[in-house]
Amino acid sequence: MKPKMTLKRIAKELGVSISTVSKALHDNKEISQENRDKIQAFAKFYNYRPNNIALSLKNKKTKTIGLIIPEIVHNFFAKVISGIEHVAKLKGYNVLIAVTNESFDKEVINMELLVHSNIDGFIMSLSKETLLNRDKHHLQETINQGIPIVMFDRVVDDIDCDKVIVDDLEGAKIATQKLIDTGCKKILLITTEDFINIGKLRTQGYLEVLRENNIKQDPSIIYRVSDMGNLERKQEAIEEDINKIFDKVSGIDGIFAVNEIYAITALNVARQRGLRVPEDLSVVSFSDGILSQHSRPSLTTISQHGFKIGEEAATLLIDRLSHEDEEKEFRTKIIKTELIERDSTR
Amino acid sequence: MKPKMTLKRIAKELGVSISTVSKALHDNKEISQENRDKIQAFAKFYNYRPNNIALSLKNKKTKTIGLIIPEIVHNFFAKVISGIEHVAKLKGYNVLIAVTNESFDKEVINMELLVHSNIDGFIMSLSKETLLNRDKHHLQETINQGIPIVMFDRVVDDIDCDKVIVDDLEGAKIATQKLIDTGCKKILLITTEDFINIGKLRTQGYLEVLRENNIKQDPSIIYRVSDMGNLERKQEAIEEDINKIFDKVSGIDGIFAVNEIYAITALNVARQRGLRVPEDLSVVSFSDGILSQHSRPSLTTISQHGFKIGEEAATLLIDRLSHEDEEKEFRTKIIKTELIERDSTR
Repeated sequence: MKPKMTLKRIAKELGVSISTVSKALHDNKEISQENRDKIQAFAKFYNYRPNNIALSLKNKKTKTIGLIIPEIVHNFFAKVISGIEHVAKLKGYNVLIAVTNESFDKEVINMELLVHSNIDGFIMSLSKETLLNRDKHHLQETINQGIPIVMFDRVVDDIDCDKVIVDDLEGAKIATQKLIDTGCKKILLITTEDFINIGKLRTQGYLEVLRENNIKQDPSIIYRVSDMGNLERKQEAIEEDINKIFDKVSGIDGIFAVNEIYAITALNVARQRGLRVPEDLSVVSFSDGILSQHSRPSLTTISQHGFKIGEEAATLLIDRLSHEDEEKEFRTKIIKTELIERDSTR
Repeated sequence: MKPKMTLKRIAKELGVSISTVSKALHDNKEISQENRDKIQAFAKFYNYRPNNIALSLKNKKTKTIGLIIPEIVHNFFAKVISGIEHVAKLKGYNVLIAVTNESFDKEVINMELLVHSNIDGFIMSLSKETLLNRDKHHLQETINQGIPIVMFDRVVDDIDCDKVIVDDLEGAKIATQKLIDTGCKKILLITTEDFINIGKLRTQGYLEVLRENNIKQDPSIIYRVSDMGNLERKQEAIEEDINKIFDKVSGIDGIFAVNEIYAITALNVARQRGLRVPEDLSVVSFSDGILSQHSRPSLTTISQHGFKIGEEAATLLIDRLSHEDEEKEFRTKIIKTELIERDSTR
């Protein structure tokens, strides 16, 4: 049985990247004329139909949403999915989900796969590699071909589409201020690298509040976790890093962690070092998942309202699909965060 | 734009169930000749292609696995997905996921959707409604049409296909024996209703161990949770029920809960009632998720090895897809459980 030709196979056969094949098939001028001709001829020979041909079949609606998420183990994405499914069910839509595992190639392949499955539109949160690469041709071309995209949480500014974002800056400010208000003087920030927009904004919120309170920022207590790899193995490495910071810097009395996993890891370190939470050390997390509720001590946290994000994203997409003939302005919905006080702060 | 005809739409138009339409289109004799004729004519008129016609397009492999799971919020399914994705990536397969939210109709619709997306085969864990209904025509017909299915965790005996199951009976026996060995005399069982096979087997394991240890079984401390509804709202109701059992029955010194959520809920009740865990009350859970690790006290639990289940399921499916010309016996892989001792037992 002859296997079906795919982007991946073409890329492999011709020894080029998936992105190059995808761009060439969309006649993107970034690829040399020679390479475009070669790749297009190869695809044609193998009867490969790129998205824009699939699209000519797209005059029938399938009432299916394609959902692309970077990972599945974070409870936040599970909540977003529940919110999307809730609205989809009410409106008679189905949802097909694909996971990128933070890979750019997987994101491109999954979009291709779902377009071939005749989904009507996408809801997506970008992979870390996509944010890092800044290669976004697959998003723009999907939109150009008339398939709407709603981005949530991990979005990029330079693609025009509907977006649902959390007020990360404001949330981080509330979290940091809470620590200061309860007497913390030396607050360790555990955050992501800056190419992740949400990590960057949360870092910025932390820094702004320090400034507002006339506290000098100290680079030795800003820990940027590089986490492109496996989550579970990473947790040990993060634990080690936090321990090293506590070894070097004395007097840390507060921690603001930009996600639950980092916060839980910080709680583990506190336990190992005999620090009482919240008496010796206060911890505030970001995103109110199942871990924050059930860890001991339970975590004071900034709620991201994942379910609501999912509901809003599905509503925006279905609304756009139902009024495709109208030219609607793209909208960005900002979901307000909220401080949920539990036992990890004074 | 004319909407595409779907099973759901046909069912609605003709005022019959999705199951009836699906059966009629597969010429299932359970449906009267008259109704079959009517439904088939209607589908034909609207140019609806049921699975078996879609199948004539299926001589090209897409290297895509369709994954159908009952829910997304349980960490167990997230782990299974990670295991499936891991093997799929190694073997060059993609995965599309659909969630049934425990609904039979959603299961049938999602399978249809994925067959139309030209997936090569299914990996699935059945919805509670499917287990309850005992309507399985959609599974048998999919298999008859040459699309292999691998079932995991929530399986049914009377469908011949590859299966991956956890040794639930053995796991429950280990859990119950652990409680008895550490001195528990009155063990509350928190389990599901019996139509869920895994709940039934775990209940059976509990009862067998009681018998082996000459402990009389007491129906007042066997609590069967009926949980067809919303998980989060249910948790409060479960908490209330457990409290009522503690009000009525004195001397409960052990709890075996068949999943993490039930175990965590039991810990909450213990806290409310001033019972110390494990001094006054020991708790053993089933399935080693993120909650068991991070609750306080952390939970002694039976590990289900979700990642491994996912790996095995994907391996079985891809193996079958790669040797489609051979007549292979169906296999059932049993994943051994393991006791992980933490702080909730003495």
